[in-house]
Amino acid sequence: MEKDPHLNITLIGAGTIGLSFAAFHLTHLPSPSHLTIYDPRPNLEAHILSTLPTFFPPGDSPTPASLSQIKIAHSLPSAVSTAHIIQESGPESLPLKQSLWADVERHAPQDALLWSSTSGLPASQQAQHMRDKTRLLVVHPFNPPHIMPLLELVPSPSTSPSVIQRTQAFWTSRGRVPIQLKRETTGFVANRLAFALLREAVHLVEQGVVGVQELDRIVESSMGPRWAVAGPFKSYHAGGGSTGLEGFFANIGGTVQACWDEAGRVNVGDGWEEGVFRQAKECYGTVDTEERDRITRRVLEVVEEERKRGKR
Amino acid sequence: MEKDPHLNITLIGAGTIGLSFAAFHLTHLPSPSHLTIYDPRPNLEAHILSTLPTFFPPGDSPTPASLSQIKIAHSLPSAVSTAHIIQESGPESLPLKQSLWADVERHAPQDALLWSSTSGLPASQQAQHMRDKTRLLVVHPFNPPHIMPLLELVPSPSTSPSVIQRTQAFWTSRGRVPIQLKRETTGFVANRLAFALLREAVHLVEQGVVGVQELDRIVESSMGPRWAVAGPFKSYHAGGGSTGLEGFFANIGGTVQACWDEAGRVNVGDGWEEGVFRQAKECYGTVDTEERDRITRRVLEVVEEERKRGKR
Repeated sequence: MEKDPHLNITLIGAGTIGLSFAAFHLTHLPSPSHLTIYDPRPNLEAHILSTLPTFFPPGDSPTPASLSQIKIAHSLPSAVSTAHIIQESGPESLPLKQSLWADVERHAPQDALLWSSTSGLPASQQAQHMRDKTRLLVVHPFNPPHIMPLLELVPSPSTSPSVIQRTQAFWTSRGRVPIQLKRETTGFVANRLAFALLREAVHLVEQGVVGVQELDRIVESSMGPRWAVAGPFKSYHAGGGSTGLEGFFANIGGTVQACWDEAGRVNVGDGWEEGVFRQAKECYGTVDTEERDRITRRVLEVVEEERKRGKR
Repeated sequence: MEKDPHLNITLIGAGTIGLSFAAFHLTHLPSPSHLTIYDPRPNLEAHILSTLPTFFPPGDSPTPASLSQIKIAHSLPSAVSTAHIIQESGPESLPLKQSLWADVERHAPQDALLWSSTSGLPASQQAQHMRDKTRLLVVHPFNPPHIMPLLELVPSPSTSPSVIQRTQAFWTSRGRVPIQLKRETTGFVANRLAFALLREAVHLVEQGVVGVQELDRIVESSMGPRWAVAGPFKSYHAGGGSTGLEGFFANIGGTVQACWDEAGRVNVGDGWEEGVFRQAKECYGTVDTEERDRITRRVLEVVEEERKRGKR
């Protein structure tokens, strides 16, 4: 499929995630392919024209040639009838996605790949009203997908191996990092991990150990850059020297357990919200995501560059 | 103090952390200052000469001029008697540190700053046998300190504000990120956060959702680079758009709580160790920390560069 010069991708849903994927696909689309966008919102074309450029670096707007690859669809059947890939980033409603996929199945080519960007609704549930459940899987991005390399591939037990393999190949050939989870699980993996840290972060702020901004600076100047280069297991495995992760736990397993024993168990709605939200507002106002994205791109570039340099 | 061209720093303990700090100080020491190293181990000088160069980038060994700034001390009194800063990175034993600081106090100049690199023993406990408890605080690095910018400053309730302020100024003037915690807490903040994520990581691997290496790649291609640029609160505050962190929780607080509800509560010794350690060994063998450190330096450089560019 990657070699096919003509590749039709259809995006269903033109919200933030959908248009971020649109920006990604536009910069990786072999000509003369098409990127079809379908969304029931009114004034879809004006919305796309005004929003899509915000997903490109300043001074690097989509070219007229690439914009001309976009087709606006006004009905689901016309959106999917010639698509090779159908990627939905619609609202997080299970009934809605269930009926969407049943519809898509009726109108799309038989071998089209069906991807959901959901951050929580498993493919096995989304596929419940489909006749052929082998073609659907979750392709969960880390926001914003036009910048972050990760895609969590979460097949249902019915998803066919060849569908998974073609999905892997698509993203890998575009320099992205598709990671397949072995089974469906609440929240998938990236969010589970990030939210576990967030929970402890809220606890430490609530306990008055540290403020919101200080906590962020701690992460930005320690585990952030470290984990951009080597994930937690690899980092602690390195920390154990020649004895690896086992040596690490032999050395400081007691400290790790002491931290776990005192870890917070805050819940949403426990009452910490007001103070934490206020601190965030006071420190950050509205975050300059353009700057954040510019720096993130550079970080990803140098990691990639240096990794390649190491392999030479 | 920062303006003083003559600055004597004494390091107690020449293990990995001590020598990593030595490498940092050597590259930031105003001439004609001295870096004194004291450690009761035999063959201290040979150990320093063979190990210290490993803390410099390849091809960038310490110069003879900088090496000539190192003094080897053979007794504690001679090590500390003319020091402006005394930084200990010895074994994590409370009785040992308590008696060390009582000794140091007897022989060091009255206004010398006293810093402990401990990752777990609070200054209030370490200072128990000192007459003047105002000068000691924890200055906890993120390993390896010659590369990672973070220093957690953890004063005891007795530490004087001027000691904290001088410590802040020392690190800030050297381009580091000293963050003061508001109170002593088990494991301080950085490790508490990292270990919270590690616990969930172990749980997800144990549950067979993902392997050790896949989990690391997930972190390396998502929250690692993200948090190198903007910490968790800032990131989720940005995720909420103009409604900030509050909007983020209004949107997906339910998903966050669902993840928290299913979060693992693994403990050290629960039996997950064998499988996780084996996976780490099989994926990584012995980690090439030279490559890791080279890439980490570059990541930190570009973040710094781009932040400055944004401020211009």
